[in-house]
Amino acid sequence: MKRVGVIGGGQLAWMMAPAAQKLDMSLVVQTPQETDPAVAVANRAVLAAVADASATLQLAKQCDVITFENEFVDLAALAQIEAQGVCFYPKIRSLAPLLDKLDQRQFLQEIGVPTPRFTPIAEELKPQQLSQFGWPTVLKTRRHGYDGQGTFILQATDTLPSTAAATHWLLEEYVPFQCELAVIAARSAAGEIVIYPVVETQQEDQVCRRVFATGFEAATDQAEEIATRILQELDYVGVMGIEFFLTRQGLLVNELAPRTHNSGHYTLDACVTSQFEQQLRAVSGLPLGSPELTCAGAVMVNLLGYEVARRDYSEKRLALSQIPNASIYWYGKTARPGRKLGHVTVRLEPDQLDEAEQIADLIEQIWYPPLGSDDEDIYLEA
Amino acid sequence: MKRVGVIGGGQLAWMMAPAAQKLDMSLVVQTPQETDPAVAVANRAVLAAVADASATLQLAKQCDVITFENEFVDLAALAQIEAQGVCFYPKIRSLAPLLDKLDQRQFLQEIGVPTPRFTPIAEELKPQQLSQFGWPTVLKTRRHGYDGQGTFILQATDTLPSTAAATHWLLEEYVPFQCELAVIAARSAAGEIVIYPVVETQQEDQVCRRVFATGFEAATDQAEEIATRILQELDYVGVMGIEFFLTRQGLLVNELAPRTHNSGHYTLDACVTSQFEQQLRAVSGLPLGSPELTCAGAVMVNLLGYEVARRDYSEKRLALSQIPNASIYWYGKTARPGRKLGHVTVRLEPDQLDEAEQIADLIEQIWYPPLGSDDEDIYLEA
Repeated sequence: MKRVGVIGGGQLAWMMAPAAQKLDMSLVVQTPQETDPAVAVANRAVLAAVADASATLQLAKQCDVITFENEFVDLAALAQIEAQGVCFYPKIRSLAPLLDKLDQRQFLQEIGVPTPRFTPIAEELKPQQLSQFGWPTVLKTRRHGYDGQGTFILQATDTLPSTAAATHWLLEEYVPFQCELAVIAARSAAGEIVIYPVVETQQEDQVCRRVFATGFEAATDQAEEIATRILQELDYVGVMGIEFFLTRQGLLVNELAPRTHNSGHYTLDACVTSQFEQQLRAVSGLPLGSPELTCAGAVMVNLLGYEVARRDYSEKRLALSQIPNASIYWYGKTARPGRKLGHVTVRLEPDQLDEAEQIADLIEQIWYPPLGSDDEDIYLEA
Repeated sequence: MKRVGVIGGGQLAWMMAPAAQKLDMSLVVQTPQETDPAVAVANRAVLAAVADASATLQLAKQCDVITFENEFVDLAALAQIEAQGVCFYPKIRSLAPLLDKLDQRQFLQEIGVPTPRFTPIAEELKPQQLSQFGWPTVLKTRRHGYDGQGTFILQATDTLPSTAAATHWLLEEYVPFQCELAVIAARSAAGEIVIYPVVETQQEDQVCRRVFATGFEAATDQAEEIATRILQELDYVGVMGIEFFLTRQGLLVNELAPRTHNSGHYTLDACVTSQFEQQLRAVSGLPLGSPELTCAGAVMVNLLGYEVARRDYSEKRLALSQIPNASIYWYGKTARPGRKLGHVTVRLEPDQLDEAEQIADLIEQIWYPPLGSDDEDIYLEA
């Protein structure tokens, strides 16, 4: 049967394992550490860095197709492997415009998808380069950013970030958005496309904290049109997470993730087909599954580490498990402040759609220590 | 967090692993072989026979609660372990009337639940003992029967089964049922009860072949009443499979399985809470989940091995995976004729409820070799 290789072995690969069980597939992951979440649930693992293409060649010998849960790969080296006949989905040429944030913006601009205004910046930052979109402004490293790492929202009076000399930068306008939205979209090799419901994502310090799948119909048409155009233009096969800013003029695309995405974790509990099952379906040639909700809505809250001490937060997890209709996914990662250690999804009844924010508040009240406690101090320092 | 021990490591324990992932629990299984399905997905395994109570004592040291996927245990020895403070759910006294088919019938009779007429039979079978319910009649070994092993439907002219001298027998009337039905029911330690939809099960040679969750409302009230009475009378905690004969006079209980059950595999794909998640919820003190369907209905077909040769049936599994809305669970067991190697569930749209039989036929046409082929000959010999 289909043997699927996954580059990366974090929580995204870990959540693919139950889907592999129901789809009768085997999973082999390439990930650096024996302790990475997916190693325990994968059929096999190649223990190597994500960017180690020679390890990917070993992975290829054990798989029918290779897909990604992490995009920090060596694309040039993977293109050579692909040329030798190894099947990657998404294809390497589909990924090519996506890994560098400047390339991504330019690709979107070329295909007519609205984005924030942007410009590349020379390696050595000078204050006068940064004012062209007014203040505040957004400065990003072009590669390897995630969860706010490598993104700086700057005021005119701020000192410039000090990073390695070789950093390539992207400057963007700061968009005064009404809210941030996202969709998960998937496309098969046969060109079939499915798009999940539009969700609202709430970030703090550029880290996703909460996701609400509670009905954002007004933005659905535009989101689906944009998602369809992107997937078709890239001849993309697999699952993609698309993040938007909602403005008074409509949607702007903020970022594309060429893989399953935090904004789609709710699909595990609330949709006919989870984003993880959908990825396996798309890359293995199965018909895509329905993205429909199986309940009125859902709220997802990330559980971020909030202290330096190594601990398993077991009493917190026990308290969370008592919330009706809640599923608690604990990734089994080493805890550190700000790290995504797990998430909770609550399936909502129709009469709970208006209470989604309160449910998210409740989860965070259970999870995070009270303001002013010792734990809170440690968290704020992190 | 809750660490759940499971006695048995077959496909039922294997299907608990994704539920453990979403409930943030760890699974430890007691099962004889390293190659048993659940070993690969459990957090740990105690490799020992299911009836080895000393191994269960080792299991207990790694768990907060122990439950069952196999009832062929040494109940007296487990009762001693329970007396030392180990938590079993269901409790040992709840299981006591269930493991011997005669005890089970007598228990049901005592609590006023209708069953086929029955009587115990002395160890040495004599033809004149067997005629009291007319012909055909049903002769069963009192313990360790499963999938038709140990059950004989006898005509007056049949020769008697030859088995070990120490076999204890149960004789029953043959019920000319209209069809066979089943329900999965669950009860928590707090006394909360949930009951899944009534399904039709179709057996061949006493082996379950197909399950239809396509609406059996007429039998629902009586099935729920019976299930509730059984769980309450036993002070039962966990999931139970209850098999019925539907007759013109209503339901008769055929058999109780003190664990998850083949008739509930469809719940993985078609219900808010699968029977496997429900068992973890019930035994760990979590609120029970909704047993409601998330689709109009479902059909489940077992994939039985049909030839002696060791093979993985991969081309069959690939063909099955192309059926829309199908999930294929492949247990990874060594194939042999008649063995349950996997199952397929198809979620049904409202307009497909009348086509459920045809969908089951299609699956079996894909799976089993055509009549008259070499494979078919081997199957029939098995």
